Amino acid sequence: METVRPHFVLFGDSITEQSFRPGGWGAALANTYSRKADVIVRGYGGYNTRWALFLLDHLFSLSCTAPPAAVTIFFGANDAALLGQTSERQYVPLEEYKENLRKIVKHLKESSATILVVLITPPPVDEEGRKEYARSVYGEKAMEHPERTNDNTGAYARQCVELAKELHIPSIDLWSKMQETTQWQKKFLSDGLHLTEEGNAVVHEEVVRVLRDGHLRAEAMPYDFPHHSKINSDHPEKAFEPKR
Amino acid sequence: METVRPHFVLFGDSITEQSFRPGGWGAALANTYSRKADVIVRGYGGYNTRWALFLLDHLFSLSCTAPPAAVTIFFGANDAALLGQTSERQYVPLEEYKENLRKIVKHLKESSATILVVLITPPPVDEEGRKEYARSVYGEKAMEHPERTNDNTGAYARQCVELAKELHIPSIDLWSKMQETTQWQKKFLSDGLHLTEEGNAVVHEEVVRVLRDGHLRAEAMPYDFPHHSKINSDHPEKAFEPKR
Repeated sequence: METVRPHFVLFGDSITEQSFRPGGWGAALANTYSRKADVIVRGYGGYNTRWALFLLDHLFSLSCTAPPAAVTIFFGANDAALLGQTSERQYVPLEEYKENLRKIVKHLKESSATILVVLITPPPVDEEGRKEYARSVYGEKAMEHPERTNDNTGAYARQCVELAKELHIPSIDLWSKMQETTQWQKKFLSDGLHLTEEGNAVVHEEVVRVLRDGHLRAEAMPYDFPHHSKINSDHPEKAFEPKR
Repeated sequence: METVRPHFVLFGDSITEQSFRPGGWGAALANTYSRKADVIVRGYGGYNTRWALFLLDHLFSLSCTAPPAAVTIFFGANDAALLGQTSERQYVPLEEYKENLRKIVKHLKESSATILVVLITPPPVDEEGRKEYARSVYGEKAMEHPERTNDNTGAYARQCVELAKELHIPSIDLWSKMQETTQWQKKFLSDGLHLTEEGNAVVHEEVVRVLRDGHLRAEAMPYDFPHHSKINSDHPEKAFEPKR
């Protein structure tokens, strides 16, 4: 009898923090792995990889007896903020972004020999959507220039994918994947940066695909306790005896 | 700086197991307590309180160093199955149901001096909805008589509420609450027993209310790490230094 189910940690910025909103990819993942694995959200809105490094020892203790079976690392949307614009305090240079991701992966690999680490690139940026959003929040005072551009975020996405290849770990190139669909700007993004329900569905589908490839297929994983149909109602204790 | 957020456990049958489906009350709770508390699902479809007792030592170890801050106990829909009908193997006598719930509460209280334990009654039963569901699954072979009745489930709900009063712990009388709304049968129940999105919303609202009354108000709980606006981008380390 399995008594402890594995857990997955979703580590990232606001796109991870919001993943349990209605239609969110985190909630969908928890449902896909119902009775099979726990899904733990560690999303920190506004965080870049530089700030994420401060969380590693707290969130992923190297002395932990039950490290996660899988972790998604989903940063870059804030690192790619442009210098000289309204979000510049979140900016992290391209090369440092890649090195920070490398440190995060290294830390996680040290916490467990079998952990599946998945890198996810930031989604594309709809600059027109960002402007509309800024106008809706700041009105006349909205910035003239975008604080993020799709091209610049694309450069970060490429570093993320490249690092995954170097480290032989799986990655999800969300930046490219989403742009394969026409009208991705409004279909997948709600404010030019965060995800609509359809955008969330893309992330869910991609994460499930990568977990399956990484031998974490929900259908193949055991229930953490017997299905009720396996319980003999005259002798229920038999279903709960430890396997010998 | 808070480094470990508290967690809530949802312990129950299929209505808990399914609570991370789209519109589910568990996912909604995780969203309400985003960055404040983890929501862990321990729902076991088809289980009654007699079988739930076998899980206690596994799920809620008395030697656990980090017991849950709150647990919802949401059983009874299966205990209230009728003898002599198709679901009779799940039947648990009314008095035993109450005593099993008492054992579960006692165990949880022993695991922690400060734990908030919340009893939830089974929802009402729409007998017509159950019949329609049975016909859709079994066709001609569908049972003539219902395997659950609303009156009988109501008796279990009353025992649940009575026990909560005896033990001075909060309860949610879902059976009564839902029937205050006209057309509750189709509005709140999808197959006469399980919850629609609107039914899930009722559970979410009630659980949040009880948690608030129990001093677990999301707004009053700390973020587990600083909000990004509190991080000095020139000296980010300051935001992550231990408080003295």
